[in-house]
Amino acid sequence: MGNVIKLVKRKYKDDEPIQNLLSLIENDFVKVENLIKQQIISEVDRIPNLANHIIQLGGKRLRPILTLTCSKICGYTGNEHINLAAAVELMHTATLLHDDVVDESNLRRGKTTSHILWDNKSSILVGDFLLGKAFQLMVESGSLESLRNLSDASVKIAEGEVMQLISSENIKTTEDQYMEIIEAKTASLFSTSCVVGGLISNSKEEEIEALLSFGKNIGITFQLKDDALDYFGKKEELGKNPGDDFFEGKVTLPIILAYRRGNKDEKEFLKNTFEEKIRHKNALKKTTEIIRKYETIEDTLERANHHGKIAKDALEIFPDDPFKNALMKLVDFSIVRSN
Amino acid sequence: MGNVIKLVKRKYKDDEPIQNLLSLIENDFVKVENLIKQQIISEVDRIPNLANHIIQLGGKRLRPILTLTCSKICGYTGNEHINLAAAVELMHTATLLHDDVVDESNLRRGKTTSHILWDNKSSILVGDFLLGKAFQLMVESGSLESLRNLSDASVKIAEGEVMQLISSENIKTTEDQYMEIIEAKTASLFSTSCVVGGLISNSKEEEIEALLSFGKNIGITFQLKDDALDYFGKKEELGKNPGDDFFEGKVTLPIILAYRRGNKDEKEFLKNTFEEKIRHKNALKKTTEIIRKYETIEDTLERANHHGKIAKDALEIFPDDPFKNALMKLVDFSIVRSN
Repeated sequence: MGNVIKLVKRKYKDDEPIQNLLSLIENDFVKVENLIKQQIISEVDRIPNLANHIIQLGGKRLRPILTLTCSKICGYTGNEHINLAAAVELMHTATLLHDDVVDESNLRRGKTTSHILWDNKSSILVGDFLLGKAFQLMVESGSLESLRNLSDASVKIAEGEVMQLISSENIKTTEDQYMEIIEAKTASLFSTSCVVGGLISNSKEEEIEALLSFGKNIGITFQLKDDALDYFGKKEELGKNPGDDFFEGKVTLPIILAYRRGNKDEKEFLKNTFEEKIRHKNALKKTTEIIRKYETIEDTLERANHHGKIAKDALEIFPDDPFKNALMKLVDFSIVRSN
Repeated sequence: MGNVIKLVKRKYKDDEPIQNLLSLIENDFVKVENLIKQQIISEVDRIPNLANHIIQLGGKRLRPILTLTCSKICGYTGNEHINLAAAVELMHTATLLHDDVVDESNLRRGKTTSHILWDNKSSILVGDFLLGKAFQLMVESGSLESLRNLSDASVKIAEGEVMQLISSENIKTTEDQYMEIIEAKTASLFSTSCVVGGLISNSKEEEIEALLSFGKNIGITFQLKDDALDYFGKKEELGKNPGDDFFEGKVTLPIILAYRRGNKDEKEFLKNTFEEKIRHKNALKKTTEIIRKYETIEDTLERANHHGKIAKDALEIFPDDPFKNALMKLVDFSIVRSN
């Protein structure tokens, strides 16, 4: 049991909030990890090989942690939260495999990405396999309402990814348009991961709504912090190259704000830079200078903080208990973390 | 209403069996077509544009036709067959989008493929979108048993595709291994399309088994005929380039049999040809000569015929009615068709 916890433990600095949460749900968490491992078994060797590669990288397992914890907050005593927690992680992993192909990234969590080790084709198909497995587990849970929410999320995620693909070519994306993108591609699965915990507990409508709001806003907080880290994180701590978003031409919030605030020359520079097919290191340096000049990292974090506060307030309707307190601290962690 | 039928009508020669089936289920079929159209609506323009491109190409709509007809054979009188029929077609369309990227094909049904008109990234993500939509419709149907079967099929299809990806590099694939591939990648969705028609009708176990066997075997028949057409079909009738499988390096049954039967030189030639990254036109000519010499097209069609017979016998337990008769004729069509 200790090994599984260690897997998550050794990956992150300053992550007492996650460790704290894990200690509250340790037994369930181990069951989820084991269930995930069972799901990727296939007679076709390439499937477990490739799937293991991405799953063993660890990640924070935030989504299953949210499902388990939210079901506990709602007083759930059954076993279906295990299936659903594994399902949300598999769905997330499937999108990561497709993302890495779409983004052409070569590092994820410090390791070479699957589509480089194998090929794009295998990553696409193993992603499809994992998504199918996620749906099998949801069916196993027997909760049609959870299935409805999760299939809605899978549609939303794909829409968000296509929106991001298109806006990548457009430096004029507004902050509102950008928020719409990250609500779809990131926050929708966070919120659904929380909501299903309430749905299987037959929670009241207002509790489901609270979980939805909490999940959505902590998801936004995580994404905005990621956006900031991509320009000012350290490679050793991030486990990936800082500047990834830049080199992939992703127009994220620090860039959107810099473009809005920049003078004519700076606007021109940013526009040309993000319209190019390839961006070079010296362009990253200049972009970082503009970001620093207009303090857009600080303001991205301020926006993250704003959503973190909404997330916390959303939880207030639940009675105080260790699960709720741990989730509150997870919100703080999502802002202060260095990876 | 006539327009929808015409859409399918104008595409295929000698397809009275499909027309006959369509005339029996015309009202339902039109509902399915309209439901599919509604599903691809999205505020993100690229999604309906790309999805429309592939859906408007028509195709034979075999899978939804099977769902509708099998539900009728089982005496179904509700409305959920419409959702499920649209779901199987959307699931199929999602796999086509991913297949075109994996296979690097540039023509589908006579039209330029989506990943060429847009890009690989969009095709991957719109495929994900359509798969999510398929699951939404299955949830709508309220049938957990159908959801279980369809999520199993989505896992099977992905496994089959990965198996094919790997065997593409292996001329020594046995006929049995190849049958396992096409049972997974093609026949599993055919059989599930039939089975769900029985599941929503609360049919008896032996009827469900009969539908499973019918669907699986007609699926194999279609695939083997496709394999044969790829070497001896005509471009105008096929709506795609003959030789596609060859140029993509797909080791299909006509090739597997040719390799087994070939002399030392021919074996060597086929091995080298399929191990190359790229195959040229003159290699296709020589490959076709070997295929002709050993009559492997004739024997591929003989195998198709064998499975067609199993499909027909599987249906025998149902009482004679126009739906059953039309399905029987569909089996014959799957063998004689020229596209």
